[in-house]
Amino acid sequence: MYTQQAGPAFVLVRPQMGENIGAASRAMWNFGLDRMRLVSPRDGWPNPKATAMASGAGRLLDNAILSGTLPEALDDSTLTFATTARPRGMTKPVYSPEAAMRAAQEHIAQGGRVSVMFGPERAGLENADIAQANAIISVPVNPEFPSLNLAQCVLLVAYEWRRASAEAPDMVTEMGGTEWASAVERDHLSTHYEEVLDEAGFFFPETKAEGMKVNLRNMWSRMPLTQADVRMLHGMLRQMVRRRKDRAE
Amino acid sequence: MYTQQAGPAFVLVRPQMGENIGAASRAMWNFGLDRMRLVSPRDGWPNPKATAMASGAGRLLDNAILSGTLPEALDDSTLTFATTARPRGMTKPVYSPEAAMRAAQEHIAQGGRVSVMFGPERAGLENADIAQANAIISVPVNPEFPSLNLAQCVLLVAYEWRRASAEAPDMVTEMGGTEWASAVERDHLSTHYEEVLDEAGFFFPETKAEGMKVNLRNMWSRMPLTQADVRMLHGMLRQMVRRRKDRAE
Repeated sequence: MYTQQAGPAFVLVRPQMGENIGAASRAMWNFGLDRMRLVSPRDGWPNPKATAMASGAGRLLDNAILSGTLPEALDDSTLTFATTARPRGMTKPVYSPEAAMRAAQEHIAQGGRVSVMFGPERAGLENADIAQANAIISVPVNPEFPSLNLAQCVLLVAYEWRRASAEAPDMVTEMGGTEWASAVERDHLSTHYEEVLDEAGFFFPETKAEGMKVNLRNMWSRMPLTQADVRMLHGMLRQMVRRRKDRAE
Repeated sequence: MYTQQAGPAFVLVRPQMGENIGAASRAMWNFGLDRMRLVSPRDGWPNPKATAMASGAGRLLDNAILSGTLPEALDDSTLTFATTARPRGMTKPVYSPEAAMRAAQEHIAQGGRVSVMFGPERAGLENADIAQANAIISVPVNPEFPSLNLAQCVLLVAYEWRRASAEAPDMVTEMGGTEWASAVERDHLSTHYEEVLDEAGFFFPETKAEGMKVNLRNMWSRMPLTQADVRMLHGMLRQMVRRRKDRAE
C-alpha cells in the first residue's frame, strides 16, 4: 500500500556548491520527495549551477523555500532530525535512517510535520544547529571511511523514506489526534524559560552560562512535547513569576 | 552481531567515465565493501581519473580485477545479481536491494560467492548481460524519475549489504553513555514541581487541581529524561524559589 501524503521537508543548512544542491534535488525526487528548504546558501539563490545539475528535478528548486535562519526554516516542524556522521556527544536519541523514516512516517500519519536537516558540505552541522533537532540520524558507514557527500546522504534518507512510506501498514495511533508542538512553539518555550531563569540568576557562574543554555535548549528539543504540554509549561512559569512578584510587593 | 566475512564482488560492466569508477569505489568502501571487478572499461585500465576521484578508496582500484568479458568476471560466482532500473520482462526473480543483500548474506554465510553487476552509465546492462544473472535487483525509485547514476546505485546496494551483514541497531538508545532517570527520580521530580506549584497557587481552581496534577505527572512520565535533565529541572525550580524568597525578604 502506498500512502499518498506529503513527505518530510529536507532542509539544506548553509549549502556551499550549487552543484550539490542540484544533486540533492535529484536524489530527493528519485524517491518521490519534493519539499526542499534552503538556509543561507553560500552563493545566493537562485543558483544557475544548481539548476543545471538538477535536470529533471528542477521543479524542486523552483519551489524550494529560502530562509535566512534555521529556526525560520523549521518554524512549522513538529519532528526534526539532524543528519550527522558522528554524534557529537549530545544527549539526543540517535536513529538509523530506516528507524528515523519509520518514525517520520508514523508522525506524518498522525498529522505531524517532519523536517530533516543536512549540514554544509565540509563541516557538517554545528552543535547549535543540532540542538534544534529532536533526534539525530546517523548513517551506519564504515568507520574507516565515513565520507558520504551531501547528495549521497540525502539519497539514503530519501530511499528509506520511500521504503517506510510504501510499506507502511495501517497505523494504530496511540497518540492519534495529538497536536504536537512546532519548532517555533518550542523555541518560544525555550526563550521564555531562558529569560525567566536568567532573571532569577540561574545561569551562574557567567563562564558556564552559555553551556547551560545550550543544555536547556537541547533538553526541550529532545522532549516529545504536545501543544498542551507547552501551554502547561508556560503557565507554570508565569504562575511562579506572578507569585514571586506578589511576594515582593 | 557483526559477521566478519568477505562481501560480494561488485562487477562494473563496460563502465565509461573514470570518475564514475572512482566514485563507485568510494561508495563501496563507505559501507565496508572492497572487492571490485571491471569488465572492459571504455578508457582502459588503470585510469588516472578513477584514481583521482577515489581518494581514500584507492586501494579498491589497485586490487580491482580486470576482465575482458563478463563470463570471465563471473567465473567463480555462485549467486549473481544484475542491477537494473526497470526489469526488462525477463523471467527472473526481482529483488529489492534489501532482500537481495539479505540473500547474499545468507549465501555467503553458507560458503557461497556473490557478485552484483552494474551496467554502463548511459544504457545500463544489456539483456545478454542480465541473462548471466540468477536474479535482478531493482531499486524502488520514483517511476516519474528513475535516473540513478552508477555510484548512487552502488551506494544503495552497498548500504543494504552493510545493513544485512552488520544488523546495525535501529536506534542507539544509549545516547553515548547516557544515564536515564529512574522511576523514583522522576517521581521525586514530579513531587518537587507539584509542591512548589501548589504553593505558588498554580493548581487553580480547586475543582480542576486534581486533573492538572495528573496532566503534569503524565507529562513528566512521557518525557525521555536523563539524570542530568532531572538535576537541571530541580535546579531551575530551586533557583526560582530562592529568588522569590530573596525578593520577599
